[in-house]
Amino acid sequence: MLAAEYTGARTITVEEREPAALRDGEVRIAVAYVGICGTDLHVYHGDMDARVTTPATIGHEMSGTIAELGPGVDGWAVGDLVTVMPLDWDGTCPACLAGNQHICQNLDFIGIDSPGALQQYWNVPARTLVRLPDGVSLRDAALVEPVAVAVHDVRRSGAGAGDKVVVIGAGPIGVLIATVATASGAEVVIAEIDANRRAAAEDMGLRTIDPSGVDQVAWVNEWTGDAGADVVFEVSGAAAAVLGATGLAKVRGTVVLVAIHSQPRPLDLHRVFWRELTILGARVYERQDFERAVELVAGGTIPAGKLITRVVALAGVAAAFEALEAGQAMKLLVEVGA
Amino acid sequence: MLAAEYTGARTITVEEREPAALRDGEVRIAVAYVGICGTDLHVYHGDMDARVTTPATIGHEMSGTIAELGPGVDGWAVGDLVTVMPLDWDGTCPACLAGNQHICQNLDFIGIDSPGALQQYWNVPARTLVRLPDGVSLRDAALVEPVAVAVHDVRRSGAGAGDKVVVIGAGPIGVLIATVATASGAEVVIAEIDANRRAAAEDMGLRTIDPSGVDQVAWVNEWTGDAGADVVFEVSGAAAAVLGATGLAKVRGTVVLVAIHSQPRPLDLHRVFWRELTILGARVYERQDFERAVELVAGGTIPAGKLITRVVALAGVAAAFEALEAGQAMKLLVEVGA
Repeated sequence: MLAAEYTGARTITVEEREPAALRDGEVRIAVAYVGICGTDLHVYHGDMDARVTTPATIGHEMSGTIAELGPGVDGWAVGDLVTVMPLDWDGTCPACLAGNQHICQNLDFIGIDSPGALQQYWNVPARTLVRLPDGVSLRDAALVEPVAVAVHDVRRSGAGAGDKVVVIGAGPIGVLIATVATASGAEVVIAEIDANRRAAAEDMGLRTIDPSGVDQVAWVNEWTGDAGADVVFEVSGAAAAVLGATGLAKVRGTVVLVAIHSQPRPLDLHRVFWRELTILGARVYERQDFERAVELVAGGTIPAGKLITRVVALAGVAAAFEALEAGQAMKLLVEVGA
Repeated sequence: MLAAEYTGARTITVEEREPAALRDGEVRIAVAYVGICGTDLHVYHGDMDARVTTPATIGHEMSGTIAELGPGVDGWAVGDLVTVMPLDWDGTCPACLAGNQHICQNLDFIGIDSPGALQQYWNVPARTLVRLPDGVSLRDAALVEPVAVAVHDVRRSGAGAGDKVVVIGAGPIGVLIATVATASGAEVVIAEIDANRRAAAEDMGLRTIDPSGVDQVAWVNEWTGDAGADVVFEVSGAAAAVLGATGLAKVRGTVVLVAIHSQPRPLDLHRVFWRELTILGARVYERQDFERAVELVAGGTIPAGKLITRVVALAGVAAAFEALEAGQAMKLLVEVGA
């Protein structure tokens, strides 16, 4: 079979190799599509070499079909359509014992800490499988994982019917959070400085503002009758956005930190104090988020056709990373097709 | 009567003047004791001149006796022992309409934005009164307001029985938060770099660590079986404390920002994200917090005798501010005594 191998900064090749042996409790998936996300791009840049053991097969946004069942696997059959919730927890750390397995203190994030989906046959523990409905588009279903991130973020924020929500950043996750929050009954606006991203979001039916062109605090106050937003999602990763996010939130409002900030960022703690704000970190997802994400993708709520702006073959994976880095795609899929 | 008047940075005098006329709905209180807090010290330094209209009579931690009832006041009698919840809200802003009157968007904080308690007779709206039980020490009761701050902070944090709590900073509010959290069933440790403050807290039966002498992350991990603290209160106002606070919290733990940080501070957003932390701003109090604070003071839970390290006469108020500034008192009271 073919498998992508990351071997060091900006080096990813496609090699022929034997599929790994199936272990107890594992299934072998014939991988259909794999989405490339910002974290994969970080790996590609070499920024996560301290964590990733090379050569590494990465990739964790995927769809596929069960090709073979390992010993001791019940409830699944060859041919089932599946995606994978790529979290493997130890079950014994304080976080797990408190019920927060998804952010286990020793979490194995499959596709970063252990082999991922950019290979034609991928072995995963059966407990990570999430069933896809018959007839679903496997191309669209490669979006389930990032949609689950958005579902988790919105669920954790408490945003719902009638709430006014600001999403800062119109990358794939920002657009998905806006879509999921809208589907939950919230009114949403995305703040995005990049005109192309704004246009893409508008094309998906989302409202946008340009924080470099309008006074976003005044805009939000006008929009909310001088209250401020119920929930603000920081999805941009920009220091200026973090500093500005608190200024958009209402008294007792919530700011959700979704983006990864690799260094400490100045936060307006006086505003947090003055308005009794809640700042929440939100990371990955729980099974209920994945299941809701499957419904949203299969039901057509997610504008998959507009999000997936490029599909490349596995053989072209190196060029795919370069295209993504150059901002030439919103969501790029690799067609792995065994 | 005598009244203290702040007229500009480091200038506070005591003047003879006529008591203000009583308006509809007001009561006149014969002020017994007034505590001086960090905010009063900020006013004294001139740091709040943009907000304070001079000459200003400040002071908002107090106890006293009703001396006269204005027109339209029911339910109170001359001689009643009282303290004041010094918040006056507009009732019409979005925060008030959402039930968060205590942090009204146009809040009048009595004693800063309007005249305060450092005068022998003080007129306040009857709706701000909080009843003190017969037989309470008026000296101790001057602590009710800061105790209400601590009650509010602990209530907002959710800390309760069995929780492990770190309080950063052993000033009066830090010590009170530790005391209230302990009374709620939590196990508490105070991190404080100043040896005198540590000694004072230990003398009140509180456990302390010196973050300049021990690795506080390792200490907390050892204390909590590698989980981290359930709740961390940042009460120091120091930038380094903010940066370190997130490192002490467990997965899904809570960091409460109590101190006033007048400028943006670097926060470890990666840790907030990674552990799905909750960062909460907490400010002032609600009526239930005041009522609980009265119980805690009157019932002897608060170590009033150890907290009140100095009592000065109103005539000596200028020297009192200087003593507080020089760190010569934990909690300093002014005996106003009409």
